[in-house]
Amino acid sequence: MKKLINGVDNIVSEMLDGMVAAYPEYVKRLDGFEVLVRACGASKKVALVSGGGSGHEPSHGGYVGEGMLDGAVAGAVFTSPTPDQVYEAIKAVDGGKGVLLVIKNYTGDVMNFEMAADMAADDGIKVEKVVVADDVAVENSTWTTGRRGIAGTVFVHKIAGAAAESGADLENVKRIAEKVIANVRSMGMALDACTVPAAGKPSFDLQDDEIEIGIGIHGEPGVNREKISPVNAIADKLLAKIFAEGIYDSGCEVAVMINGMGGTPLMELFVANKHVKEVLAAKNISVAKTLVGNYMTSLDMEGFSITLLKLDDELKKFLNAPANTPAFVQR
Amino acid sequence: MKKLINGVDNIVSEMLDGMVAAYPEYVKRLDGFEVLVRACGASKKVALVSGGGSGHEPSHGGYVGEGMLDGAVAGAVFTSPTPDQVYEAIKAVDGGKGVLLVIKNYTGDVMNFEMAADMAADDGIKVEKVVVADDVAVENSTWTTGRRGIAGTVFVHKIAGAAAESGADLENVKRIAEKVIANVRSMGMALDACTVPAAGKPSFDLQDDEIEIGIGIHGEPGVNREKISPVNAIADKLLAKIFAEGIYDSGCEVAVMINGMGGTPLMELFVANKHVKEVLAAKNISVAKTLVGNYMTSLDMEGFSITLLKLDDELKKFLNAPANTPAFVQR
Repeated sequence: MKKLINGVDNIVSEMLDGMVAAYPEYVKRLDGFEVLVRACGASKKVALVSGGGSGHEPSHGGYVGEGMLDGAVAGAVFTSPTPDQVYEAIKAVDGGKGVLLVIKNYTGDVMNFEMAADMAADDGIKVEKVVVADDVAVENSTWTTGRRGIAGTVFVHKIAGAAAESGADLENVKRIAEKVIANVRSMGMALDACTVPAAGKPSFDLQDDEIEIGIGIHGEPGVNREKISPVNAIADKLLAKIFAEGIYDSGCEVAVMINGMGGTPLMELFVANKHVKEVLAAKNISVAKTLVGNYMTSLDMEGFSITLLKLDDELKKFLNAPANTPAFVQR
Repeated sequence: MKKLINGVDNIVSEMLDGMVAAYPEYVKRLDGFEVLVRACGASKKVALVSGGGSGHEPSHGGYVGEGMLDGAVAGAVFTSPTPDQVYEAIKAVDGGKGVLLVIKNYTGDVMNFEMAADMAADDGIKVEKVVVADDVAVENSTWTTGRRGIAGTVFVHKIAGAAAESGADLENVKRIAEKVIANVRSMGMALDACTVPAAGKPSFDLQDDEIEIGIGIHGEPGVNREKISPVNAIADKLLAKIFAEGIYDSGCEVAVMINGMGGTPLMELFVANKHVKEVLAAKNISVAKTLVGNYMTSLDMEGFSITLLKLDDELKKFLNAPANTPAFVQR
């Protein structure tokens, strides 16, 4: 294993300090916790807290800032943060209007965020939660009951975050987040596995001509191993599963994310985007917004995922609203 | 070689179409050329054109937009664009106030951009050029006379672009670009080489415990091969060469870029940034702005570079000015 680290024990803490060092105008760290919150502290609006295991950067700390998250909790690599860490984040960001937890559907995350919500509720803080489960690759997985939550989570941060910034109350912010969740689907693939630092070797092995279809974001293998094909054919396979959901009809409008898994050059993501856009056009689906890049990664994994989000006027308005965070700035 | 492509021949063209498909509000492609220009066309200010071989994404097309570039010319992977392509870009963006070419110091780029400048001058277009040579690793290289131009180029785009946007004339935009060039230095390293699609194999081979110090951005080997060490020690080596330039004195203010080479997880770049910031603080050098991410890549290379830019009031003002491009948005 070759990585740009100082050791496996302090990676997450050093990373968080490195983020604060880079973006002091956006984020600060809660003393003694692996939690980033907005530099300005709690605000008078509904607050959003997300997080999960580390290794998905810029998720989640990169999305802390105006128009997106108020706090992000960073567990160890691919490991749920403990309830006490989430609880501290909730207390730090609540300004009296309540807190929405945005959880990716992994069993550990759901359990620990729920425990933290109960602890905060005991303090009289209004807490609601939504669980993102956008990955169409599998119905259940090693670490989930039900579908996994992956890159589509970023659209929940953006849109629910903008709703909160607009002054919507907790009930409405939750309703809007759930509408995003109902309308967003993703599927990914890998050319090569990632290497978890503490493990020291790739989480699965692929031959020089093999790819893995339907991977998650925690180094778990996918649902199908096959010979590599042109990226257009690979994208067609991912899109076929996404279209099978029956959400994306002729005439609808979508947002698209072509998400790199961490080790994939931007050049290749743009090549994939060209084809995805053509396939959507042929289906009479218009694209209101496209994100191409590393949004929800899996350490150094080479591969990508495709996410489609069906928009209505409300979702589109909040998707296009301003945001100002380390990893997502929009004017 | 495993890559997310359809074939080696059309990668650049497909990538450019994929960029336009993603960001139609920012960029359009010149019909029949591998050139991206602002979607709004020529403006009444001094225009900036940059570019070079492809494989450095988001450079350079990702920086076309308000406050940065007006046009970007994309050669084949790691290959200078031809003079006629640069010439078309110049003609397309000139609005009468003249055009500044921002060239990374590689022999082919300098020659071809200069030929294009001569062709445009024959048409009566005012054209000036600056050559970025920020890489302190080598005095001359395989493909350059003098130092190579690498990630520091992005600061030239940002600052000279903001100067042009503010209404500065061609002479002043060039003066400011040259001040950036005088004050910016970079150095990089790799954990693993990149694979040029047409070559099909890594451009050099490293053992499982080896790194390469002083790499460029075109797959060329570095100046020193050694055993891997903690990232703090690696960063110290890069910084030592940069500090030896005698530019970054106690009490000065800098901008920092921790640039990923394309295959490096953001987590590792933030770990590096923590240490760089501490080293600068110990030297009584303050950091006005930090960029961490994939700004000037080398395909799928794993590694990073450190760039320091010494600021004065003028450079800082333009660095902090708004920008709105696909890969760099600042409010």
